[in-house]
This record gives sequence, C-alpha cells and structure tokens, in this order.
Amino acid sequence: MKIDLNSDLGESLGAWTMGDDAAMLGIVSSANVACGFHAGDPAGILQTLRAAQECGVVVGAHVAYPDLQGFGRRAMDVASADLVADVIYQIGALQGLAAAAGTTVRYVKPHGALYNTIAQDARQAQDVITAIRAIDPGLVLVALAGAPLVQWARDAGLRVVSEAFADRAYTPAGALVSRREKGAVLHDPELIARRMARLVREGVVEAIDGSLVRIEADSICVHGDSPDAVAIARQLRACLEQDGIAIASFAG
Amino acid sequence: MKIDLNSDLGESLGAWTMGDDAAMLGIVSSANVACGFHAGDPAGILQTLRAAQECGVVVGAHVAYPDLQGFGRRAMDVASADLVADVIYQIGALQGLAAAAGTTVRYVKPHGALYNTIAQDARQAQDVITAIRAIDPGLVLVALAGAPLVQWARDAGLRVVSEAFADRAYTPAGALVSRREKGAVLHDPELIARRMARLVREGVVEAIDGSLVRIEADSICVHGDSPDAVAIARQLRACLEQDGIAIASFAG
Amino acid sequence: MKIDLNSDLGESLGAWTMGDDAAMLGIVSSANVACGFHAGDPAGILQTLRAAQECGVVVGAHVAYPDLQGFGRRAMDVASADLVADVIYQIGALQGLAAAAGTTVRYVKPHGALYNTIAQDARQAQDVITAIRAIDPGLVLVALAGAPLVQWARDAGLRVVSEAFADRAYTPAGALVSRREKGAVLHDPELIARRMARLVREGVVEAIDGSLVRIEADSICVHGDSPDAVAIARQLRACLEQDGIAIASFAG
Amino acid sequence: MKIDLNSDLGESLGAWTMGDDAAMLGIVSSANVACGFHAGDPAGILQTLRAAQECGVVVGAHVAYPDLQGFGRRAMDVASADLVADVIYQIGALQGLAAAAGTTVRYVKPHGALYNTIAQDARQAQDVITAIRAIDPGLVLVALAGAPLVQWARDAGLRVVSEAFADRAYTPAGALVSRREKGAVLHDPELIARRMARLVREGVVEAIDGSLVRIEADSICVHGDSPDAVAIARQLRACLEQDGIAIASFAG
Repeated sequence: MKIDLNSDLGESLGAWTMGDDAAMLGIVSSANVACGFHAGDPAGILQTLRAAQECGVVVGAHVAYPDLQGFGRRAMDVASADLVADVIYQIGALQGLAAAAGTTVRYVKPHGALYNTIAQDARQAQDVITAIRAIDPGLVLVALAGAPLVQWARDAGLRVVSEAFADRAYTPAGALVSRREKGAVLHDPELIARRMARLVREGVVEAIDGSLVRIEADSICVHGDSPDAVAIARQLRACLEQDGIAIASFAG
Repeated sequence: MKIDLNSDLGESLGAWTMGDDAAMLGIVSSANVACGFHAGDPAGILQTLRAAQECGVVVGAHVAYPDLQGFGRRAMDVASADLVADVIYQIGALQGLAAAAGTTVRYVKPHGALYNTIAQDARQAQDVITAIRAIDPGLVLVALAGAPLVQWARDAGLRVVSEAFADRAYTPAGALVSRREKGAVLHDPELIARRMARLVREGVVEAIDGSLVRIEADSICVHGDSPDAVAIARQLRACLEQDGIAIASFAG
Repeated sequence: MKIDLNSDLGESLGAWTMGDDAAMLGIVSSANVACGFHAGDPAGILQTLRAAQECGVVVGAHVAYPDLQGFGRRAMDVASADLVADVIYQIGALQGLAAAAGTTVRYVKPHGALYNTIAQDARQAQDVITAIRAIDPGLVLVALAGAPLVQWARDAGLRVVSEAFADRAYTPAGALVSRREKGAVLHDPELIARRMARLVREGVVEAIDGSLVRIEADSICVHGDSPDAVAIARQLRACLEQDGIAIASFAG
Repeated sequence: MKIDLNSDLGESLGAWTMGDDAAMLGIVSSANVACGFHAGDPAGILQTLRAAQECGVVVGAHVAYPDLQGFGRRAMDVASADLVADVIYQIGALQGLAAAAGTTVRYVKPHGALYNTIAQDARQAQDVITAIRAIDPGLVLVALAGAPLVQWARDAGLRVVSEAFADRAYTPAGALVSRREKGAVLHDPELIARRMARLVREGVVEAIDGSLVRIEADSICVHGDSPDAVAIARQLRACLEQDGIAIASFAG
C-alpha cells in the first residue's frame, strides 16, 4: 500500500517568507510549487526546486489567477484566451526553473480560487485542460476528489490524480464541509492521522454526521504554513508508515 | 549572401496595443518576443507566437528587468540570484507558450536597460550567461556587435550572434552614437537600406565622421513600433533582396 | 438647460498610449481619471490632471479593481476590508496628484467590472460607499441611472449623479441592452446626438423596441478611445449646444 | 531633553506578514508607513494607520521605488517626471488612508535604495523635494544625518529632520559604515542604548575607530522586523527614559 502526500511550497515572495519549505520537503512526496502569479518570485522558486530535487520530491506547477494581493484566493472572471495562456505561461516558467534545478515538472495543481472554480465550472475547467494539453499532455492534473473536473479532464485524455484534504471534514456526500461551518477544519494530529490511514486502507472517511463516505484519493494534501501544520504533517507521515503505508509520488 | 533581420514583437499588454506585429512578421526572419517583464501578457504573447509560427519566423526570448511601468528601459541593480532566476523564468514561460504555438525558442536577446547593461557590465553579463546555460545551452545569445559581452559569452561556451542597428549612427570606433547626440538616429529609408546593404556585402558602415568602420554583424535590428518604422523595415528588406542578399534566420 | 459630459481619461500606461486626452478635454466637462489600478501611471495621470486643470474640466477618481492585465474589466470577489481600502487608496493618490496639478477631485466614478458589480451588488456597493465617506463625504458618486446603487448611496448620505451612456441602447425598463445583443452599441453620430438632446430636454430615450423610457441622468458618458469615438463626442457636444443646452459639470 | 524614535511599519503584503507593528507602536513616536510601492497593501496599511492613531504615534510616508520583488532595495534609474509623480502618488494614497483612520501624514521618509540614492544624488534628491513641495510644503523630510540632501532640502524651503541609526556603526567622518564591512551592524542592546543616550545628551557617537564624531540627529531609527529588533528598540526606549530623555515626535 502507498499514498502520495502533497503540499504547497515556494510561496515566499522577495523579502516576505511563507511556510517552512525545508521541513515540508522532508515529509511530502510531491511539492506544489508556486509559479509567481499568486506567490513566489523566480529566485525563491528556484531555491525551492533545488531543495525538492535534492530531497527526491516530485514537483508540480501550482498555477493560479494573477493576484498577489489576494494570494490567488479571489474568484476572477478571466476570459478563456487569458486563462489558457496564463496557465501555459506559469507551467513553462516553472519548467524552465526546474530544468535549471535538475528536475522536471510532473503535474499541475491549480491553486486557491482557480482550484475551487474549475472543480465545478465547466468553462474555466476546459481552459485549464486545454492549457495542459497544449504545453505537455503528459502532465498529470491533481484535482479535488469527487469533483466534476476529474471526469472532464479524463474525458479530454489527461491523467488525473484525486486528492483528499488531511485536515478537512467531509459531508456525507463526499464534499468538503465549507470553511464557514463549524467543525470544517480538524486540528487534532492524532485524529487526522487515523482518518487518513483509514482512507488509504479502506477508501473511506467518517463524514461530519458520523456516516462513512467513500473517497477516491491517490494523494493527500497537507499544509505547511505554520509550526502546527508542519507537526500535523509529520505525525501523519509517521502514522501512515507505522501502518505499513509507503509515502510515494503518484508520478514515481 | 544572407542576413538575419530581427525586430521586437509581442509588446502589447492587455488593452494596450504596441507595434504592428502582423506587418513585421512579413518582413523579418527573427522575432524578439516579449516575456511579460517589460511588456506582453500571456494571451498576447501566444497570439504573436502563433503568427510567427505561421509566417515561418524564428522566435527568441526578449528578456528584461521586471519593470512594466518603465518598459524595461530603466537600469536596475538586480542581485545575481534574482537576475539569473528572472531570466530563466522568462525563457521558460516563452518556451511553454512557444510549445503551445507549435514553435520553439531558438535564441535570447535581452531588452532595453538589461541589453545595454550586460553589453559592458561583467557581473550582470555573467548572470545572463549563467541563466541561458542553466535552462538550455543550445540557445543563441544575440548581442551588440563589438561589445565585451560577445567574447564573454563565447568564452562561456554560448553561440553568439552580433547585431547592428539599421537606423543608428556609429562612432569611428564601432560603437553606437548616443541617442542624446545629434544625428544618432537615421530616418531616411533609402539611406538606411543602402548602409545595411553595404554592411552585409563589405562588413563596413560609414561612421558619423565619414570614416569607414568594420562591424561584425550576423543580424540587423529593425524597429516596428510606428508606421514609419514599418516602412523603413520594408524598404530595407526590399533593397537587400534586390542586391541578392537573402533574409534568413541565423538559426535556420 | 444644461448637462454634464464625462469621459474616461488618463488611461495610458508607461510606454503604452490609450485615447486622445487632449481632444477629449476640449469636449467634456468632467474627466474620469484612472488611478493606477486598471490603467494609468503616476506621471501620465499627473499630465492628464494638469491638462484638465488648464481646460477647466472637473476631475473625478475612476477607481477600479487591481487588474492591469484585464483593464479592470474582470469581476473579482474582493473582500470588504480590501475593497474599502483599495478605493480610499486610489482616491487619495489622485487627490495628491490633483493638488500638485492645482485642481481638486470632485467625484468618484467606479470603472469597468467594479462599476457593473456595485450597480447591483449590495455588499460591494456598501464597501465603495464606506470608502468615499471615510475619505471625503463631500465627494459625489457617479452611478448608472436607474441602478439600485443610486438609492443605496443617497440613503448613506452621499450626493449621487446618475449618468446615461451616449452610444448605448436601452431596454424598455431603462436598463442598458447587454453588449452581447445586437444593436446594443450605436455608431451613428447624428442619431446619438439627437437621442441625447431629447434625453436632456424631455428626460426620455427611445428604447430598443421603439417605446419611450424615462431616464434620470445629470451626466452623459462619452467614449474617447478611438478617432470615431472622439468624432461622436464632438458632434454630440455641438448638437447639444445648438439646441441651447449648456455643457457644464454637475460639480460647478 | 527629548528625541524622536522612528520605525518602518505597515510592511506586510496580503497573506505575507512582516514585523510586529503592534509591539513597535508601543515603543516609537513616529511610524514610517509603507505606501504600496516597496511593501504594504491598502487594507494592511489602513490597519497600521488606525493602530498608530490609537497609540498616538505620528505617521510619515515611507515612499519608495516601484519594486515589490526587491523590497525597494534596488537602485533604479527613474526619470524625473516618473519619480516626482510616483512620490506624490504614494504620499497622496497614504494621506487618503490616514484621513480614513482619523490621522494625518506629517512627514516623508524615503525608503531603501531611494533613501540612499537621494542622500547623495542631486537630481533624484531634487525630484523628491519637488514632489513634497507640490503636494504639501508643510511635510517634514526625514533624511540621513550629515548627507548633502539635508541642506538641499532646507535650501528648497522644506523642514528637515536628520536621523541617526541606533544599530549602525559610524565612520570618523560621521557616515554609516557600509554593511559589507565588519562591525557595521551592532547587536548588543545595552551598547546600542548607551550610544544613543550619549548621542541625545552630548551630540556625539563613538566612531568605529574609537574617535568621537558629532552627529546632528533629531530622530533615531530603530528596526522592528524581528523579535531581537523589537527587544533592542524596547531597551533603547527604557534606557533613554531612565536618563530623563522624553520620547516624542518632532512633529508634536
């Protein structure tokens, strides 16, 4: 048994630091690296890519809307010609920096508002799919487990990896409980680790109402933007390994 | 006999238009395409790359300092780690868009203040050379004929193409006459065409003092940012062809 | 009888030119000046403000979402704390430049997607109202005639001026016909001028179905971003003046 | 006896945090607030201004080159028309936000590379002076003690406050020891506090060679971008107060 762990990295910007990339690269198997549109400047991205290469962590392009001020978390009504080209531009820029770091971009994971929008919105989803196919149809798309996007992208010929979120509650229907609702985010490292171990072994998580819900997930997203988050990720990895589950990239 | 003609393209930005890319792509053999740092947005750049591909025009990365407001024309004291990564990022982004357009980036031509600075400044020159070698040592560097950069880049193992400027006066030493001085910029299409034809045939131009100066140039830079500029470029091409000089990319 | 004519100015950006500010300042009584978020750089804005001051044209702040690439035309889900502060920042910046130009910002007219959103969206509308009241409650808000925003802003104590669009068709209910529909934009200068003269004299325009619809408008918006647009604006002004209608700012 | 303490605040950007504004506002008498060009977004700036107003801390505009990626620390060859307008724009934006926060911008302190450049460079210095005079000649300019800028600005009619740097070594000539040299930055809070107390009482500091050098300083700049820096600032204030020196703004 094995599972991929992915986390958002390379999100520092010039004089501003975010997250603990060095710590997370010792925990995860896949690094979603910022591409400069919501976070990341070229020199910082390059540094993260070199560290990922040294740690043997697989690299993906964390593409986003062009919105540093809002950290890519604000929905934007971007026209198709712009969205397609923006995504290609970001992937290409990361591929260039990855080549310089001796590694390769293996997947694409949209960030923030773009991630949420394309999970459901057919037009913008198609734009992102078009972009990936235009630059390299061999790139894997990482998408929200259970979202319509998963099938849309498979229908278009892309390989898709579904992901679960380690610290998020699920509805009985298998969707994420909205952050605005109580209990949406889990904080207990022990509980988080047990839930994810069960997900990998049995393919189910306990939903917020206590029922069991089936989630198709080949990757688990963990956060690394606070000391607590790093501790949660570390315990999750340790717990999975104790259960005999290997941490390994889907692109291995 | 043959010569390359290159011009700056893809410099529109969102709602703002610059230059007449369609007209210039019918004249030149090489397109220096903006990469988003001094000009160009991804959708506009992609459109220019597609048009270049259709016209059979070779594409280069017109890399620059990060300065939209100043159009990359302002000298900036960028640290090496930043400059190296900024140049890789831009080349990679253009490579990605070029792949989507069915073409390939064949060369790098720095823009504006970066072009002028690295012609003479060893530290920043080395940073740009390092960047090119890190992403693809097969990329050609287009540089100012006679500048120290030409030899520095060759010493580092890069192929360098020197360029002359069609509409600029030269000093007896083979340098460009500063734009601040009278007579620095030529406006007569007939005269410009005759000077460049002679340069290709004999390897010399008449300097501002009337003496002849030897210029090593495998490419001629022509402007396209005004109706006059397009007319000058068109006449130059016609005149060269009448003289039996083929217009062809150095990367052909 | 009198009416205000307003137009969007100061939209050039660095090396990129947009519109013919000099021509429009000879035609309109109010200049909606870009504040740097969707268009305009400080030096260009200052130049436009100086020209407005010399022409005796009243100045307003053309505030927008932070989106140069999309020219402020893309809907963005901006949080209230950000939207309030973004609008204050833009008005303040323009007030500073206006002081340097010897003039004063008299009104605020949101631009593009922000204009359309706050016409109907109570939350973002309230944010813009809050911003204006926080920096200067004496500033007039220019809003779409007939939109809910007009009353919301009046309820909050702001003076509101409603505007009609010279070159747009209206529905029988007094709304703008969507640009996606046929006939939404008028091109005949003579027709445009006659419609607006009637609007000023009688308070009605002929809707797209031939019925008459009442529009409360103290200002007419004219475009100036093309030679045709300038010609339409010029003819409109001439026609209004022939009818004995004075062109004068609402803030005079 | 009294002295002003100033510090750089409002330098967070969107999701990125920098410094501990709340702590520093309990220590200093003057807040150099970022204006969005090197750091700061409108909502964060507004929050800092409100906190400054509540703490009774005087506010200044920390104007900079347009360079988020480089944090305004990179020298830029900005043309006069741009530099003048950029500085006015930033001051105006901060004045607008300050009005919304119930406070007023009382002074201007250029940041980073702009600070260093105008200390010596007559052309850019004159541009900043022109900008301040154009928007409000009553604004005080905070400048490096002993720099030519001090006299240039006084000659132009501006009130100038000179500042010393708490944690920097001085040459026998009264200049700052370059950061590239050993001993340029002091780290011992006790030593720093004693040096500054002596500066306020006697007008001298011990230079790096042990000699005494006279420094004209009405303000002392303290850093707040790390826990150590906050501790140094806190001890400095305590030490000064123990010596009977009041901490009070020059603009009080």
